[in-house]
Amino acid sequence: MARILCAGLGPGDPDLISIRSDRAVRGATQVAYFRKAGRRGQARAIVEGMLRPDALELAMEYPVTTELPFDSPEYNDALARFYDDWAERLAALPGEVVVLCEGDPFFYGSFMHLYARLRGRVEIEVIPGITGMAGCWHATGTPITWGDDVLSVLMGTLPEADLVSHMRGADALAIMKTGRNLPKVRRALETAGRLDDAWLIERGTMPGQRVARLAEVDAEDCPYFAIVIVHGHGRRPEVHQ
Amino acid sequence: MARILCAGLGPGDPDLISIRSDRAVRGATQVAYFRKAGRRGQARAIVEGMLRPDALELAMEYPVTTELPFDSPEYNDALARFYDDWAERLAALPGEVVVLCEGDPFFYGSFMHLYARLRGRVEIEVIPGITGMAGCWHATGTPITWGDDVLSVLMGTLPEADLVSHMRGADALAIMKTGRNLPKVRRALETAGRLDDAWLIERGTMPGQRVARLAEVDAEDCPYFAIVIVHGHGRRPEVHQ
Repeated sequence: MARILCAGLGPGDPDLISIRSDRAVRGATQVAYFRKAGRRGQARAIVEGMLRPDALELAMEYPVTTELPFDSPEYNDALARFYDDWAERLAALPGEVVVLCEGDPFFYGSFMHLYARLRGRVEIEVIPGITGMAGCWHATGTPITWGDDVLSVLMGTLPEADLVSHMRGADALAIMKTGRNLPKVRRALETAGRLDDAWLIERGTMPGQRVARLAEVDAEDCPYFAIVIVHGHGRRPEVHQ
Repeated sequence: MARILCAGLGPGDPDLISIRSDRAVRGATQVAYFRKAGRRGQARAIVEGMLRPDALELAMEYPVTTELPFDSPEYNDALARFYDDWAERLAALPGEVVVLCEGDPFFYGSFMHLYARLRGRVEIEVIPGITGMAGCWHATGTPITWGDDVLSVLMGTLPEADLVSHMRGADALAIMKTGRNLPKVRRALETAGRLDDAWLIERGTMPGQRVARLAEVDAEDCPYFAIVIVHGHGRRPEVHQ
């Protein structure tokens, strides 16, 4: 029976992988990772040069991602079958398989869909990772939260009115799944009076990192791996100098 | 002029320190860390056995913490002078000093008060870490967020009505600074209808880790290093098996 070890890989810089995940990745004889068809995949890219030359690689390629609306029953069914299928394939492997996951596997990660199917059936260990959003707030060079600040993590896929309401209620914000939702996220931030404090971070901690004020980003420019950050300012002891 | 390297150490397990912070800690000749007077300090405890035998250790001991109300001007002044003083002392050190920080230094960390004082005056590098709250949600063995879930991070020090409002508005919750605020946090969760889904995690990823349903924890039991977690359940492809 397989043993599954899910290694959280952090935000992108291989130097930000934990000691435990680094050891798991370098020692792995069987490695699996999600990716879009025809792409290298973010998790696989992070560990470039770290795998054993004889490691068996299993690329778990997402089915249809643009042909069907992402909230249609057909898309949902295709994805459920995809996770069912890979859960069975990983469980049938001889010995340990290391599943690579960018960020933290328990924080909006795809691995959770395998975990929900295999938990209690095979031995599973999950290694935490630094989240992608933490990589992005570090890229801005400014702390995200102080004192009693409330941080809300929002998905750009939410309805615009919900985004506005959460943006008004929290001190600090991290907004993920931006991409084609970026114009909506931007409008919501403007309505909530937060646009001037919003930063767009692309490829945080990775080569080609870009940090820009969202208000100054071209409206047509909708990068996919981008997170919007608004910093909190909390109560703090005064700086005297 | 000093170079300051702030090493995020993660939630507590030394195996969850990043490759970069691990290297910084093991190579450091000057090490500084915050702690309460008379305590070993959480950051220092994490790196036990990792420091060079000849490393100079600087324990930055917080001034008064219980003698004055934490929101009084006197307390605020004492804390401001404390950070002013240590900022000057670190800046005057010869060569590099590694400041140890549990969790992620830019996420509610004390280092930020030194950073605000020294930024632009000395060279500073900050290494991200896995947050304490991530260590706690991993301790529960259940993913914190799925799909479009909204995660709100709240401090137990907030007014009860604010806590209730945020607890009602978000899908997933992480509540920090519980301690003596735990009875208030518990009442707020009950009012918001979330108490039955709340978990109390003490010493996440560390020896003596404890995970309990908050509703079943004795009301008199207010551990200081504890985080309350409520998991999101987001939209997800159905599990067929």
